[in-house]
Amino acid sequence: MEFTSFKEIALKYKVIFFDAFGVLKTYKGVFPGVKEMLGYLQENNIDFYVLTNDASRSPELLVKSYHNAGVTEITEEKIISSGMLAREYIHYKVKNGTIAYLGTEQSAHYLEKKGVNVIPIQAVDIDNCQDIQLLVFLDDEGFTWDIDLNKTLNLLRKNPVPVIVANTDGTYPVANKEVAIAIGAISEMIEKLARKTFIRFGKPDSQIFNYAFNYAINDVTITKNDILMVGDSLITDIIGGNKFGIDTCLVLTGNIQPENYHLQIAALGIVPDYICESVAT
Amino acid sequence: MEFTSFKEIALKYKVIFFDAFGVLKTYKGVFPGVKEMLGYLQENNIDFYVLTNDASRSPELLVKSYHNAGVTEITEEKIISSGMLAREYIHYKVKNGTIAYLGTEQSAHYLEKKGVNVIPIQAVDIDNCQDIQLLVFLDDEGFTWDIDLNKTLNLLRKNPVPVIVANTDGTYPVANKEVAIAIGAISEMIEKLARKTFIRFGKPDSQIFNYAFNYAINDVTITKNDILMVGDSLITDIIGGNKFGIDTCLVLTGNIQPENYHLQIAALGIVPDYICESVAT
Amino acid sequence: MEFTSFKEIALKYKVIFFDAFGVLKTYKGVFPGVKEMLGYLQENNIDFYVLTNDASRSPELLVKSYHNAGVTEITEEKIISSGMLAREYIHYKVKNGTIAYLGTEQSAHYLEKKGVNVIPIQAVDIDNCQDIQLLVFLDDEGFTWDIDLNKTLNLLRKNPVPVIVANTDGTYPVANKEVAIAIGAISEMIEKLARKTFIRFGKPDSQIFNYAFNYAINDVTITKNDILMVGDSLITDIIGGNKFGIDTCLVLTGNIQPENYHLQIAALGIVPDYICESVAT
Amino acid sequence: MEFTSFKEIALKYKVIFFDAFGVLKTYKGVFPGVKEMLGYLQENNIDFYVLTNDASRSPELLVKSYHNAGVTEITEEKIISSGMLAREYIHYKVKNGTIAYLGTEQSAHYLEKKGVNVIPIQAVDIDNCQDIQLLVFLDDEGFTWDIDLNKTLNLLRKNPVPVIVANTDGTYPVANKEVAIAIGAISEMIEKLARKTFIRFGKPDSQIFNYAFNYAINDVTITKNDILMVGDSLITDIIGGNKFGIDTCLVLTGNIQPENYHLQIAALGIVPDYICESVAT
Repeated sequence: MEFTSFKEIALKYKVIFFDAFGVLKTYKGVFPGVKEMLGYLQENNIDFYVLTNDASRSPELLVKSYHNAGVTEITEEKIISSGMLAREYIHYKVKNGTIAYLGTEQSAHYLEKKGVNVIPIQAVDIDNCQDIQLLVFLDDEGFTWDIDLNKTLNLLRKNPVPVIVANTDGTYPVANKEVAIAIGAISEMIEKLARKTFIRFGKPDSQIFNYAFNYAINDVTITKNDILMVGDSLITDIIGGNKFGIDTCLVLTGNIQPENYHLQIAALGIVPDYICESVAT
Repeated sequence: MEFTSFKEIALKYKVIFFDAFGVLKTYKGVFPGVKEMLGYLQENNIDFYVLTNDASRSPELLVKSYHNAGVTEITEEKIISSGMLAREYIHYKVKNGTIAYLGTEQSAHYLEKKGVNVIPIQAVDIDNCQDIQLLVFLDDEGFTWDIDLNKTLNLLRKNPVPVIVANTDGTYPVANKEVAIAIGAISEMIEKLARKTFIRFGKPDSQIFNYAFNYAINDVTITKNDILMVGDSLITDIIGGNKFGIDTCLVLTGNIQPENYHLQIAALGIVPDYICESVAT
Repeated sequence: MEFTSFKEIALKYKVIFFDAFGVLKTYKGVFPGVKEMLGYLQENNIDFYVLTNDASRSPELLVKSYHNAGVTEITEEKIISSGMLAREYIHYKVKNGTIAYLGTEQSAHYLEKKGVNVIPIQAVDIDNCQDIQLLVFLDDEGFTWDIDLNKTLNLLRKNPVPVIVANTDGTYPVANKEVAIAIGAISEMIEKLARKTFIRFGKPDSQIFNYAFNYAINDVTITKNDILMVGDSLITDIIGGNKFGIDTCLVLTGNIQPENYHLQIAALGIVPDYICESVAT
Repeated sequence: MEFTSFKEIALKYKVIFFDAFGVLKTYKGVFPGVKEMLGYLQENNIDFYVLTNDASRSPELLVKSYHNAGVTEITEEKIISSGMLAREYIHYKVKNGTIAYLGTEQSAHYLEKKGVNVIPIQAVDIDNCQDIQLLVFLDDEGFTWDIDLNKTLNLLRKNPVPVIVANTDGTYPVANKEVAIAIGAISEMIEKLARKTFIRFGKPDSQIFNYAFNYAINDVTITKNDILMVGDSLITDIIGGNKFGIDTCLVLTGNIQPENYHLQIAALGIVPDYICESVAT
């Protein structure tokens, strides 16, 4: 398989879904060439959205890192985060009572609803928790792991409420080739110990793709044939896009290296429609 | 929680999604009262669909069991089977080449596409399999387990093609409280041995709910608030409906008994919006 | 199955293996009647050992809770803890270099060896960790979960050393029907994220039974037919004893209640040879 | 790490444990140089045993492939198969009644015991199965997968007897780089569907190492320091030997290739004490 020019491929589509990390940016900042590429899409009337497994911040805060780098093409409306699926769940399924969460105060932004009380796990009184209707895992920060994870487990043993997890990732990259444990992995440990079945939102699950699809077709009349998913991860972006029935493009600026992408595709049996060195090509 | 009358609840919705087995029928036939209930829905302009994890037969064949029992309200257009998701995947993602499958000849009905060759696993030549673009697990019948499962595993080791599984169930009920191993469980064994990641269609995954949702809104203008999912299984029907954001109703004519439903709801932390003894109440 | 008198059963054996928690004591203290029962065993020349999934304290410290309750029959030599398996592993497999551990300072007692340097995870310099030969998960206390678990994961990504886990339990009981997350569950999360295979010591794994067996036959000439394992947990004590080939006795003073022990035995297919209400009967 | 001469290493030990497949032979026959190497061990008074995850044949039949190749040094007494652990379990834990098994007639050799009735799964009458005390998974041949696996699952739902699996392997190599599904993988599928906990015998579990250890010390006075485990698989032979506390030697004539053994050791964090190209060096 030869590398293709991303800009050439993009012309075949009406909408592009981008993964954020490893595609548009790293923890160090936005990749060079991203601003030009997004301008090129706009010139050619190609719409785009950023699909991200991130419930740690609101779209408003998520765009700041792009704006700081001068990439003003990415506005709040372009961001589709897994946190927004949690918000949709609450919209349809929680009518009243209290929602407890694990995460930072700014992640709790996704949980606000009129008539519903939102409290961090720290504020839960385990001997008086009948009012809790939902528990949400949002982010790995904002609580004390040992104290609050033990409390979470005992809460679920006493009051078996529904649980949603707003980020399916196991780890996320930080500086110097190191990673940090994400809320997805922490929630799996608690799920197993509590013997419950949690609801998970985020790629590769199709619900975030469907959410983005419905969001996108408010603008233009498109079918799945008109959408391209661009990602750096076979096991979230590419298999998720394939399953949803849209075309997929793997870029080699993140998870997967140019020298072994063919080995990884063969090992997993997850096949993208295109492979590009980067979105700037 | 008190049992509610299903007919009373139904009046609050514009569309009902029914699970088939344990809700409308068993292996012995259609439940008494189902025909009357469906007539009642039609009188009240409430639309309905049957969502079933079944890729063993086309909708055309699936309705026969209802028609034989005189329940002519369930027509081919009312059936949404997990096999139809496999058909949609092929529509969007397979352009040419050969599709190999495990299942009966009648299950292969879902795989037909112009320009694409469809062959059963028995007809695969493992030393000459480069043309295969997709492998599909459809049904537990139609092949010889020991010979053809070993062949399937070796095919995936030689040619790591994408794999879809058109039924997520582990077992299905047959006569006398006995069960049979379903293709979902068989595919999991192969997936683990081949160290691949398969794509799975069927409840509780949200894609079948989304497919049904798009299918239903061709008829009327509805939102998720207007739909009720009715099922007998917490871990497929109820959690799947909850995750998709629609209201859910557990009936006690299948998987879960009237005497211990509250224990099971507490044990799993999967909470339906309503509980009815049966759809005939 | 009728409840049998434990003292009657005991007479058929030369050695008894007791689980500690739920059999001899709870977090509140030693059960009434334990001292008398142990005296009865000694009068009848029946030897006994306490097999415990506990690496948080040395045998010397573990006996204190018994001695405080006046049960002086349980001496240091009677305790076989999963921490002792870690010590044996180090004896045979670690010749020099550094061992890093997660746990309290008193749990590190099991890791001491001449010529080997032992340091807590806090003291590991991740940019200079080539000297580390082994990582040991000992206890859930003694470190800061978020900081030190992220450090542990990154250590394993940089330096893929062997890892041993000296306690297989997922949780342990604390006060008021609450539980705490044990090091077994924490290590599973890290194992999955690091994609390694850890070595685990503790019931139901047969190695602790074998260790106890070899320890016991220093005193008398016994065969497996002469030993009875007494426990309150089907999935650790009973299945572990059965697999090792010794007779097993379930007591109903811990994990499993008198009113539903038959349901649990049937559900799991793990069958003890005897069932007693308590060891004091 | 440099390759070492196996014969040089061997001189440091009193007993060698060999894995069979990939170390001493392949499906094509015994490796060249094996006969000479075993003669060399005997000249130097080094004892040896073959530890194999195989319950398909008795030791008597297993030695035939060696004798046919002129390797008469391997006698029946040198073979320690996982089937022998099943036999030991029955010796200690089954007193009467019926044992049902999945496997060939010759594999059932391991199950014979005075006063106990042994029948293949085909002969089980599922409506009259109260006499069954144990179910044993022995081999993937000797029964019809679809019919008899469904029967096995329903047997366990009706009569939750203990289950032992006498081979932990998921697959085994056959001709032309192909593999076959082993009884270990089949039993895992049934275990999950039946929601039971099976007892498994075979490497890497320590019980087969312990059995071999006790078997070996009938001949000479040895400690764990005197034994070397030689294998071609990190995840069964090497980790199993390490956990048991004996030294381990990886050979590169089977599972793992000379060009990437260091990658695999780093990926898994399973570290052998020695690496040799083959046992003939």
